[in-house]
Amino acid sequence: MRVVKIMFIIMILIMLPFALCTGGAQEKEVITWVGQCQFPAGSIEYDAFKKACDLINLQSAGRLVIKPNSAGSIVAATKQFDAVDSGTLDFALDTSAYWRDKWLVAPLFDMQIAGMSAAEHYLWFLEGGGAELAREMVGDKYNVYITKAAFLFPPEIFLSTVKPINSISDIKGMKIRTAGDDGEVFSKMGASLTMIPGGELYEAMSRGTIDAFQFMSPAGDTSIGLHEVVKYLYLSPVRQPCSMSMVIVNKSKWEKLPVDLQEVVQTSFLSEAWHFYGRVAQADAEAIQKYQAKGVKIGHPPKEVENAMEKLAGEMYKERSAEDPFYAKVYESKRKWKEMIDSVYNKL
Amino acid sequence: MRVVKIMFIIMILIMLPFALCTGGAQEKEVITWVGQCQFPAGSIEYDAFKKACDLINLQSAGRLVIKPNSAGSIVAATKQFDAVDSGTLDFALDTSAYWRDKWLVAPLFDMQIAGMSAAEHYLWFLEGGGAELAREMVGDKYNVYITKAAFLFPPEIFLSTVKPINSISDIKGMKIRTAGDDGEVFSKMGASLTMIPGGELYEAMSRGTIDAFQFMSPAGDTSIGLHEVVKYLYLSPVRQPCSMSMVIVNKSKWEKLPVDLQEVVQTSFLSEAWHFYGRVAQADAEAIQKYQAKGVKIGHPPKEVENAMEKLAGEMYKERSAEDPFYAKVYESKRKWKEMIDSVYNKL
Repeated sequence: MRVVKIMFIIMILIMLPFALCTGGAQEKEVITWVGQCQFPAGSIEYDAFKKACDLINLQSAGRLVIKPNSAGSIVAATKQFDAVDSGTLDFALDTSAYWRDKWLVAPLFDMQIAGMSAAEHYLWFLEGGGAELAREMVGDKYNVYITKAAFLFPPEIFLSTVKPINSISDIKGMKIRTAGDDGEVFSKMGASLTMIPGGELYEAMSRGTIDAFQFMSPAGDTSIGLHEVVKYLYLSPVRQPCSMSMVIVNKSKWEKLPVDLQEVVQTSFLSEAWHFYGRVAQADAEAIQKYQAKGVKIGHPPKEVENAMEKLAGEMYKERSAEDPFYAKVYESKRKWKEMIDSVYNKL
Repeated sequence: MRVVKIMFIIMILIMLPFALCTGGAQEKEVITWVGQCQFPAGSIEYDAFKKACDLINLQSAGRLVIKPNSAGSIVAATKQFDAVDSGTLDFALDTSAYWRDKWLVAPLFDMQIAGMSAAEHYLWFLEGGGAELAREMVGDKYNVYITKAAFLFPPEIFLSTVKPINSISDIKGMKIRTAGDDGEVFSKMGASLTMIPGGELYEAMSRGTIDAFQFMSPAGDTSIGLHEVVKYLYLSPVRQPCSMSMVIVNKSKWEKLPVDLQEVVQTSFLSEAWHFYGRVAQADAEAIQKYQAKGVKIGHPPKEVENAMEKLAGEMYKERSAEDPFYAKVYESKRKWKEMIDSVYNKL
């Protein structure tokens, strides 16, 4: 009996470390994150968002598991910042244009009228102090971290209209659906503004409730049939030369994430962002053909309209800078970065 | 004594599985790669190359260990392709301009005279079939895989001279240090060409052996003091609107690499590439100030010179396309991609 007892103890002792050991091997912590994107299911943007999430899953070798969601699945697209702050979302792909209610300067991290190209804007964000300024804006009041990962967008449509624009005077009195900073500039040019949800634009244009609108890119607009209610398509980078949606993360979650996984998040989005940028360009070019097939006249706005928009926007930015030192700090940082690029290359 | 013996056996039995177990934990295969970059130690480029390698080490959580080397450390910068093919190097950051001896079309994967901007070129490479064409060019004869990871460069200097360029006739008879496709175009404009190593340029310009040269960017040229021997600095994207150095990998090694680590390699380089692009822009702008301090006249070449360069380059590309169907395929692919972008945005 004593031998059996000893054997039993020995067996337990032999098994124990194996058990501990297996536990050790499985110790690899799996972090699960729920994310949402500002774009709806079925869009090129959401498709790219999902691909970036897949890339995180793959590159993290299963250590960080991402559950992607399209706009509105968990919270409204315009409420993602608050959801990341509260922890309802672990992260989001979001536009700072939606944070305008919190900070008037926020849209400048997305785009600027007559401002930098997508590449220039992103280089400013990465290397010119842009990301640091965005973090300074958010401050400690919110539990939100601004990463350096971003999706870049090419210039949007200048304006889709039913009336021709041959001079600045043609803008005067034009009923335009628009919003944000460029809305203010159109207003200064004498347009009468109205804000209509995207889904109601087709009807509003068909009925003549409005004369013109700015909504999305050619691919986005044609995806909801808007090329059917347009007579003139004006293309120009002046109104929206680029836009940049940022990956924002709940700050507590970000700080707990190992540094290698932080990089996995950033590089996955960045890598997919460039594929996406190329696909958007292709989709927009295909969309232009749909306008052509409908007999829409495609052209550029007159130079005097572009110049007026640039001048009025500049005045608006300067007025705001005079009122708000932090606005001035961001605007000046961007102005200097663009001036630096212009001193050598004119445009990147 | 018997108890001691039993205790001893028990201890051995207890330790054994721990030993085995630790062995198991260390089973994780570590892959070591030796890489070389086409740029010398001390350059902004090599610094970025090292940072990308660090990012691979970090993101792979030690599964892929990269040993970076600067140009010439293992093989000459111009011989990296062959070293990757033979396996002397596992991978390299390399310019396809160095592969011109193998394929006349190779430099088109790096840049094109009067061609696309860096962003446009890279989007073509990623989404427009560029990478696939580069792989088709390399074919099965070489054990080299072209990844989608790349470093992008802004436009180079048009020309640094001791004589002013006020018209095309000023190019005629000018002794220019240059090479490659743009050398052929300068030759067609009546310049007399010579190829002088970068390190001998200072002396050649000082002695008047040559009237002009094209070498690198403002930052690169000033780093070896060339702003001291220049009277006129001509900036224009027409000669070299961008360049792109690609990450090439020994194909057998690439195929053995797990797919998640393949992505780690690509996203690490891509991520660092954009930081690098921003730092180069800053360094070039700072270098411009060095030219200014030396009293160098900084300006753009006359429009007629830019137009002539574009026209002559177009003719050259078409002549080569007529002679070589694969040249035509690559050139046509790039032309169509640029046309597609122009149809909506003019420039990205």
